[in-house]
Amino acid sequence: MKIKNCLSPFVVLALTFNLTATHIQKTPDISELDITPKKIDQLGITNPDKLSAASKRALMWPDDLSSEWFFEYNVYDLKGDLAYEEGVVRRDPSALIKHSGKYYVWYTKSVGPRDGFGGDISKEKVFPWDRSDIWYATSKDGLTWEEQGLAVPRGEPGAYDDRSVFTTEIMEWEGKYYLCYQVVGGDYVVRVKNEVGLAWADSPDGPWTKSKEPILSPADNGIWKGEEQNRFIVEKKGDFDSHKVHDPCIIPYKGKFYLFYKGEQMGEEITWGGREIRHGVAIADNPKGPYVKSEYNPISNSGHEICVWPYNGGIASLITTDGPEKNTVQWSLDGINFEIMSVVKGAPHAIGINRTIDPEEEPLAALRWGLTHQYMNPDYQYIRGFKTRRIIRHVAAGAPGTK
Amino acid sequence: MKIKNCLSPFVVLALTFNLTATHIQKTPDISELDITPKKIDQLGITNPDKLSAASKRALMWPDDLSSEWFFEYNVYDLKGDLAYEEGVVRRDPSALIKHSGKYYVWYTKSVGPRDGFGGDISKEKVFPWDRSDIWYATSKDGLTWEEQGLAVPRGEPGAYDDRSVFTTEIMEWEGKYYLCYQVVGGDYVVRVKNEVGLAWADSPDGPWTKSKEPILSPADNGIWKGEEQNRFIVEKKGDFDSHKVHDPCIIPYKGKFYLFYKGEQMGEEITWGGREIRHGVAIADNPKGPYVKSEYNPISNSGHEICVWPYNGGIASLITTDGPEKNTVQWSLDGINFEIMSVVKGAPHAIGINRTIDPEEEPLAALRWGLTHQYMNPDYQYIRGFKTRRIIRHVAAGAPGTK
Repeated sequence: MKIKNCLSPFVVLALTFNLTATHIQKTPDISELDITPKKIDQLGITNPDKLSAASKRALMWPDDLSSEWFFEYNVYDLKGDLAYEEGVVRRDPSALIKHSGKYYVWYTKSVGPRDGFGGDISKEKVFPWDRSDIWYATSKDGLTWEEQGLAVPRGEPGAYDDRSVFTTEIMEWEGKYYLCYQVVGGDYVVRVKNEVGLAWADSPDGPWTKSKEPILSPADNGIWKGEEQNRFIVEKKGDFDSHKVHDPCIIPYKGKFYLFYKGEQMGEEITWGGREIRHGVAIADNPKGPYVKSEYNPISNSGHEICVWPYNGGIASLITTDGPEKNTVQWSLDGINFEIMSVVKGAPHAIGINRTIDPEEEPLAALRWGLTHQYMNPDYQYIRGFKTRRIIRHVAAGAPGTK
Repeated sequence: MKIKNCLSPFVVLALTFNLTATHIQKTPDISELDITPKKIDQLGITNPDKLSAASKRALMWPDDLSSEWFFEYNVYDLKGDLAYEEGVVRRDPSALIKHSGKYYVWYTKSVGPRDGFGGDISKEKVFPWDRSDIWYATSKDGLTWEEQGLAVPRGEPGAYDDRSVFTTEIMEWEGKYYLCYQVVGGDYVVRVKNEVGLAWADSPDGPWTKSKEPILSPADNGIWKGEEQNRFIVEKKGDFDSHKVHDPCIIPYKGKFYLFYKGEQMGEEITWGGREIRHGVAIADNPKGPYVKSEYNPISNSGHEICVWPYNGGIASLITTDGPEKNTVQWSLDGINFEIMSVVKGAPHAIGINRTIDPEEEPLAALRWGLTHQYMNPDYQYIRGFKTRRIIRHVAAGAPGTK
């Protein structure tokens, strides 16, 4: 990627070509642009016949100037049982739903510090989300929470989920409740392949019935190299989700059920400044499956935790943390082909979205407030609240306003 | 922007068209893509003939997987005279240069709280950077600083810079030193048009000689509406820099001098979630000017403070805070046509870049460490340090590493 300064027109042309191959977003050719006096005026362009590369890109932006897909946010402490508790991990809050006048949230809970992979893995706890179960809590106001107890425990020894169940999402559908979540069975070694489990109940207070088998598994087409427990060394990487299927979230959509998830690949690399993280979707006719992975996967080449909500006949998705499209809100008409609607400065981690707000009120209604988690330290995480605000246009004599 | 869910193919086509007009980045058509087995493999694409919109965009990304344009960062407190001081504003640090074994930095200094625009503007201080002068400090290690005193004071009453001089940048060129900075003359009313001044010296310790006239002024083609001191109400907005010219930074480049600056427009709006902030450049044959604004302005339609450095025969620019291209590092071969090289999670504010490091070592060498400012509260800001790190590829058995 060394491009040397040189004044020869021939070399400059070659350099321009080289640059085209190395930048992260294509600047459109002038022939692709729809240049109107309104847009030139909106973008403060000095001369319509002398367009900088930045102006050419900006001429592709929407001309309604709308901020409805953009947000800023703040986080705050919760009260009651979800306040930080020494020695306890509570993380990865589910979406919020409301039942009998109370908000409900499910989350990963474990106790004690993590030991890492250096010791006796069959006895120790490798990650904060290892040796976890799914617990739940309720609240009248979304701020003060009361822990209600265990919702979905790890399986009995020998079951596919006997090591840990964690990172859950809730779906309410036709009077029934569905929790999908990550599971690990057997020893939690570095190369273990996790899966996705499902539990259902007639009430958000349970009792929960677990699926006999996982509803989603990693692709089986990667090949590890050697016997060392090293996830970066492979003969063949396989599909984008050949190692892990994370952060499952099921959305009822167009008469089917769309299970969005984060894939991790065997032989993961750091690419373009972030982890090689991608999103996929698997689709079923019924809530319990079978879920079939889309042939169009991956549906995002950036992002981390799944955060999706229905809007305007399509599905919106918040993309954070990894990849060149980090910190964007995207939307698709079909749950597959996501377009970038906005770029945000940052976002809360591991969002538990607020499904008690009508998502059709505005594009980001589902993000108006909800839950997130924060690392107190590498061992312990706790659940906090977040609120978003939209920066709106200046009003008469005022400064920039927020909504 | 209401798109209703509908199953008629005709309407779906119309909706797709509508979507094209509203998203922030164009997804390339398949005909524009250079699809190679290597890229398909790199991106973890399941089926090359079933590409999601995200995969189409990702196929435009560079295929070297390099992270050299990407960074993360942390900030830290300084020691000595630049540590936070109650009742004193120190902000907008210049670039760092080295002279006689010491680092030098210049910055905006003022005292006392801000009063806003509600009182007697002729006597009060409207902003933290109002009634400021340019001071400087030196350090042997970049961490502990000794304030050396006043460098460039406000002008005498009646001068074009008699109200405040602030937000400075340093340029060293052929043994001479140049400070460019913002100036306000007369009352600092809401609608005041600021300008850019220049001072030069044979030594970084001064004495400094000020230019008799500003070297850059706002465009003179906007028209305010009414007499109220309201910057949002206009008959005509004028050019992107019709109200303010901010954050000047001069770079010697290709035998000329490129003065990069932030423009603010009369009748500024909130567009796409941020302030209507754009960058321009003005070019001179000599350090003292005259500086002529480029016909290609604006050269960025996003961003806030100017942060530019030479690299590989071109100019690199960090774009933060406002607009859809916020949090990107860009590079141009000509100082005009900037392309997006990376997307970062965030960046230090108002960076004072480190010009003591050879910028050619790697794309982000100039950002390896430097100074930034932070708001202790709306009245008082102080200067802090920052360090960046690059996330590099996984090494053998290790976790993600940083450099």
